[in-house]
Amino acid sequence: MDLVTPQDVEAAQRRISTVAGPSAVVRTPLLPLIGIEDREIWVKPENLQPTGAFKIRGALNAIAALPEPVRARGVVAYSSGNHARAVAHAAHAFGVPATVVVPHTAPAAKIAAARELGAEVVAVDVADRESTAQRITAERGATLVPPFDDLAVIAGQGTVGLEIAADLEVDVVVVPVSGGGLLSGVATAIRARRPAAKIIGVEPELAADARESLHAGRRVSWPIELRTRTGADGLTAQPSELTFRHLLDRVDDIVTVSEAEIDAAVAHLARRARIVAERSGAVSVAACLHRRLPPGRTVAVVSGGNIDAGELANLLTSEG
Amino acid sequence: MDLVTPQDVEAAQRRISTVAGPSAVVRTPLLPLIGIEDREIWVKPENLQPTGAFKIRGALNAIAALPEPVRARGVVAYSSGNHARAVAHAAHAFGVPATVVVPHTAPAAKIAAARELGAEVVAVDVADRESTAQRITAERGATLVPPFDDLAVIAGQGTVGLEIAADLEVDVVVVPVSGGGLLSGVATAIRARRPAAKIIGVEPELAADARESLHAGRRVSWPIELRTRTGADGLTAQPSELTFRHLLDRVDDIVTVSEAEIDAAVAHLARRARIVAERSGAVSVAACLHRRLPPGRTVAVVSGGNIDAGELANLLTSEG
Repeated sequence: MDLVTPQDVEAAQRRISTVAGPSAVVRTPLLPLIGIEDREIWVKPENLQPTGAFKIRGALNAIAALPEPVRARGVVAYSSGNHARAVAHAAHAFGVPATVVVPHTAPAAKIAAARELGAEVVAVDVADRESTAQRITAERGATLVPPFDDLAVIAGQGTVGLEIAADLEVDVVVVPVSGGGLLSGVATAIRARRPAAKIIGVEPELAADARESLHAGRRVSWPIELRTRTGADGLTAQPSELTFRHLLDRVDDIVTVSEAEIDAAVAHLARRARIVAERSGAVSVAACLHRRLPPGRTVAVVSGGNIDAGELANLLTSEG
Repeated sequence: MDLVTPQDVEAAQRRISTVAGPSAVVRTPLLPLIGIEDREIWVKPENLQPTGAFKIRGALNAIAALPEPVRARGVVAYSSGNHARAVAHAAHAFGVPATVVVPHTAPAAKIAAARELGAEVVAVDVADRESTAQRITAERGATLVPPFDDLAVIAGQGTVGLEIAADLEVDVVVVPVSGGGLLSGVATAIRARRPAAKIIGVEPELAADARESLHAGRRVSWPIELRTRTGADGLTAQPSELTFRHLLDRVDDIVTVSEAEIDAAVAHLARRARIVAERSGAVSVAACLHRRLPPGRTVAVVSGGNIDAGELANLLTSEG
C-alpha cells in the first residue's frame, strides 16, 4: 500500500497556495500558551481557517489535483460536519458544484451552513448516505471527496505539519485523532523535517479505538454506540486501513483524555489563547495540560472551532 | 512637532523581530469574515498576541530602542490594563525589571496578571498614580513607557499596518481609537504602502472625543465621567497632542458605534471568526457591520481579547 510521501505534502502546499482571497487557506501562526505550564507549549490554531477547521486543506488539495474537465463536473461529500463545509467551500473557490449528502437528522444550522457556502444539500435516511452519494457521483460524473481515506486529502492536511516545522524547532507534536487523516499528514511532514520529534495522537477516553488499534498493531473497531458517547463529536470516526498504516509507520503514541479535561481545555483556550475551539479541536491541549508527554517544545494542533455559542457559554461559566 | 515616519515603523519591525520564542510578537494572519456581508472584510486578530493585545508591539519597540545600560535599570508603566501587561511582558523578554503602578481599586485579576508576568506591582490611590510612577522612575533611573504619547510606542504599533499591507491590497483600514497610538502608527504605515487606502478610526458613541476633535480640527476634551460610560473600557483615554497631530495628518475619518453594536460584534467574532475579542477590540468590526464605510477590501483591526469569561458567556447567550 502506498503511503503519502513528504513530496506529496510539499506538492499539496504549492497547490493550495494557488487559491487566493477569502477562500484561501489561512497561514496560521503558532500561539504561545504562557504563564502556567512548566513546558513551552504552542497552539496551532486551525480553528481560524475560513470554515473553522483544518479540513479545507485536504479538500482544496483534492479538488485542485483533479484534471480540469473532471473537476468541472463537481464534487460530492457525505458528512454534516467540518468536512462537508470544507468541500463546499473548496468547490466554491474553484467555481464547481458541490453536493453534500446529510442525514435527515442533521441539525438545521449545519444544513444552513453548507447551503450558505453554495452547496446543494441532499437529505436522506442515515443508512442511505453512502449509497446516495455514490449514486449522485455516478449519475453526474462527479468526484467523491472522502473525509480522510484518500492520499490527496491526507497530503493536504499534512501542510499543517510543514508550517509547524517552518516556524519552530519542535520536539513534540500533539494532534487530535478521528479517522486519522490529519495525524497521518502531519506525521509525514514532521518525520521528514524534524526526524527526532515525537508525534502523539489524542482521543477521548470514550472513543479510544485508534489508541487500542495502535497498541494492538491491528485495527480494532469500537461499536458506534460507544464512540458517539463523547462530546467531541468530530472524533467518532475510525481510521481506515490507509490512515492506520500511516499511524503504525509514523506515530509514537496515542493518549486519551477525559470529557472533563476536554471541556476545561475549551475554556482554557478561550481564556488564555483567546480562541474559540470545539471540543474535538481541544483534545490536544487537554493532553498537554493533563498527561505526561515527552519533554521539549510542544505544539498542540487545535483542529477546529465550530462549537455552538450556547455550549461555549456553558463551558465558560461552569469553570472557575 | 516631529511625527513618526514610515522608516521609524520599519525600524520598529526589525527591532521587534529580534525577540524570539514565546515572548515574541505573533505574526498575525488576516482572517476572512465570510458568508454574510456584501463587502470583502478581513480581521487582523491582535487579540492573539501573547498578552492578548497589540500593545506588546509598542512596548517591545520602546524597550528595545533603549541603550542597554538604561534598559538594565528597568521600566515603569502606570495602567492596570493591556499596556501594563505588555510592558511587564516586554521587560521580561529583555530580562529587565518592570514596575506597574495601579490604583488600589484595580481588579485582583489584573494585578495577578501583571505579577504573573514578573512585574512588581505598586498599588496607590488613583490620584497618585502618575506622581508615584515619576518618583519610582527618578529614584531607580528607570524609564517610563507611556501607553501612546511616545514616538517609539507609536512606531511599534505601526507594525500592524506593515503586516496588513504585506498581506493584502487593502482599500480601507478600520482601527479602534483610544489615545490614538495604534491608529497613528497604522495610518503611518498604510499611507506609505497603500497611499490611496482610506484609514478610518472607530470610537464608542459614549466616548467620541477623538471624532469630535478630528472634525473640529483641534483637541476637544470630554469629562472622564462621560468617557467611562462605555463598556469598551480600553477606549476611554484621549489623544495627546502628539497622536492628534498624526490623526489630523493621516486619518480620513473617525466613526462611532453603539454599545449594542459593540456587544453584537464580540458575539459575531466568536461565532464567525472563532476568536475571543474584548469590546474595545471589536468596535472596528461593529463599524464594518453597521456603518457605511468607503468601498473596497476592508481590514478591521481587532486590537485585543482580554474579556472576562463570564461576560463573554453573557454576550454569547444574549444574542440570537
